Amino acid sequence: MKLVSYLVSGRASFGLLTNNGIVDLKQRFGDKYVDLKSLISDSEGLALAKNYINEASDINEQDITYLPVIPNPNKILCVGMNYAEKRAEFNETSSAPTLFVRFPDSQTGHKTDIIKPAITEELDYEGELAIVIGKTAFRIQPEEALSYVAGYSCYMDGSIRDWQYSWFTAGKNWPSTGAFGPCLTTTDEIPDPKVLTLATYLNGQEMQRDSVKNLVHTVPELISYISTFTRLSPGDVILTGSPGGVGKKRNPPVFMKDGDKIEVEITGIGRLTNYVVAEK
Amino acid sequence: MKLVSYLVSGRASFGLLTNNGIVDLKQRFGDKYVDLKSLISDSEGLALAKNYINEASDINEQDITYLPVIPNPNKILCVGMNYAEKRAEFNETSSAPTLFVRFPDSQTGHKTDIIKPAITEELDYEGELAIVIGKTAFRIQPEEALSYVAGYSCYMDGSIRDWQYSWFTAGKNWPSTGAFGPCLTTTDEIPDPKVLTLATYLNGQEMQRDSVKNLVHTVPELISYISTFTRLSPGDVILTGSPGGVGKKRNPPVFMKDGDKIEVEITGIGRLTNYVVAEK
Repeated sequence: MKLVSYLVSGRASFGLLTNNGIVDLKQRFGDKYVDLKSLISDSEGLALAKNYINEASDINEQDITYLPVIPNPNKILCVGMNYAEKRAEFNETSSAPTLFVRFPDSQTGHKTDIIKPAITEELDYEGELAIVIGKTAFRIQPEEALSYVAGYSCYMDGSIRDWQYSWFTAGKNWPSTGAFGPCLTTTDEIPDPKVLTLATYLNGQEMQRDSVKNLVHTVPELISYISTFTRLSPGDVILTGSPGGVGKKRNPPVFMKDGDKIEVEITGIGRLTNYVVAEK
Repeated sequence: MKLVSYLVSGRASFGLLTNNGIVDLKQRFGDKYVDLKSLISDSEGLALAKNYINEASDINEQDITYLPVIPNPNKILCVGMNYAEKRAEFNETSSAPTLFVRFPDSQTGHKTDIIKPAITEELDYEGELAIVIGKTAFRIQPEEALSYVAGYSCYMDGSIRDWQYSWFTAGKNWPSTGAFGPCLTTTDEIPDPKVLTLATYLNGQEMQRDSVKNLVHTVPELISYISTFTRLSPGDVILTGSPGGVGKKRNPPVFMKDGDKIEVEITGIGRLTNYVVAEK
């Protein structure tokens, strides 16, 4: 099942993404679920949504404006330096997961614009697998961690390299730099994310490619580690880190500029497409 | 004017802290303001609150359970390494403000317990000045920054040193480790925070002392820097960093343990007192 958040006729909604278009769930559920996060937060929500999967669609995909898959997570935790090649590029040696936080208002949806701030020429791409949490998780063991996941999505963790430093906060929170989409693919379709492959394309050219099975800290390990110190809630997002091949570490460096198209594709999820626009 | 958030008879409320007790504002404002953040978010809120400053108090201070001054900020940005002595202790050389994020659910109020996690013996204190933002702030120049402040408070940024690394997230987000209080002193009483002095006491013994005028990145500079990359909203919190003298860098190191009393006092605000309890 693939779930999306979007605007239609100026109204925020969410629904099922099917081959024939979008089945609007907000319309069907009425006040029961106000958004995708509230659907996920109800232990019966995903099962109830699945009942509508064979219904005729209500909206053509081209008539919506995509929102971030979860526009309003309580927590977005981002893992850095989690593929061997990326760690080598940044000389990372710590054995603990590198963790930083992205605020929800830095996010944007599929097919929308990524804003390159006027102050920098170092807007870089990072294609990543996003985990969306489905149940409250605190002090969870790795063996049970996958049962706390609602599903997975693509993320383009746009990074302002000259503001990043070793603590990341200022490099990772600019408005419209975190693209999240196109959809949430639920765990019935992806029981184990290790089988997924991720690739990033800049103007159609492949810039990053790796397999999720190569994560240094695996999806279950990340959920276990993070839930040791902070309580995770439905709709919370964990970005699992980016493969090697980022622009900053190329020779010469490659940064994103006005007019560029940046895409992150993950098998079983889809291709997240965004357009870079320079801030005036 | 000194504002507080608290529980009374199991109900969350907020009010004015006066010499004679607490004037409950939630009761007076009814549905107009649900909490202190919503009072601050209204441009007239603080002025309306001030009208009640000479009223008879409704509640004795000993009958409330303090909540964090702002229990539910949208953003808590924490500045590290911002006093010369602390920078020397940690060999910090970056000229950009060190920034990390604390989640609101890691906070606790005045006179409540700080929880020492069972997994660590390295729970350390950091006394800090907290800025509470009063107006939406984006791309603000330092010269105008103080006009975006609602007021100031004390913060005890409890830190798990063996989980901190260079990105801080995992060391700074454990439940009930960030004490915030006792009150918000508004800018009518503190027009310029440079005059303030901060001290931290562990079991009554002074462990840290410095003047806010010694901040490497000043209050206006921090607001300007942060608002360059992210939009600040009323109720958002900026922790300005801690003086030298933290426990980790003492010889031998001093960490907090079950039964300890930790206090952060700032002139013009008050003394934030908390008790350390070991997690079972």
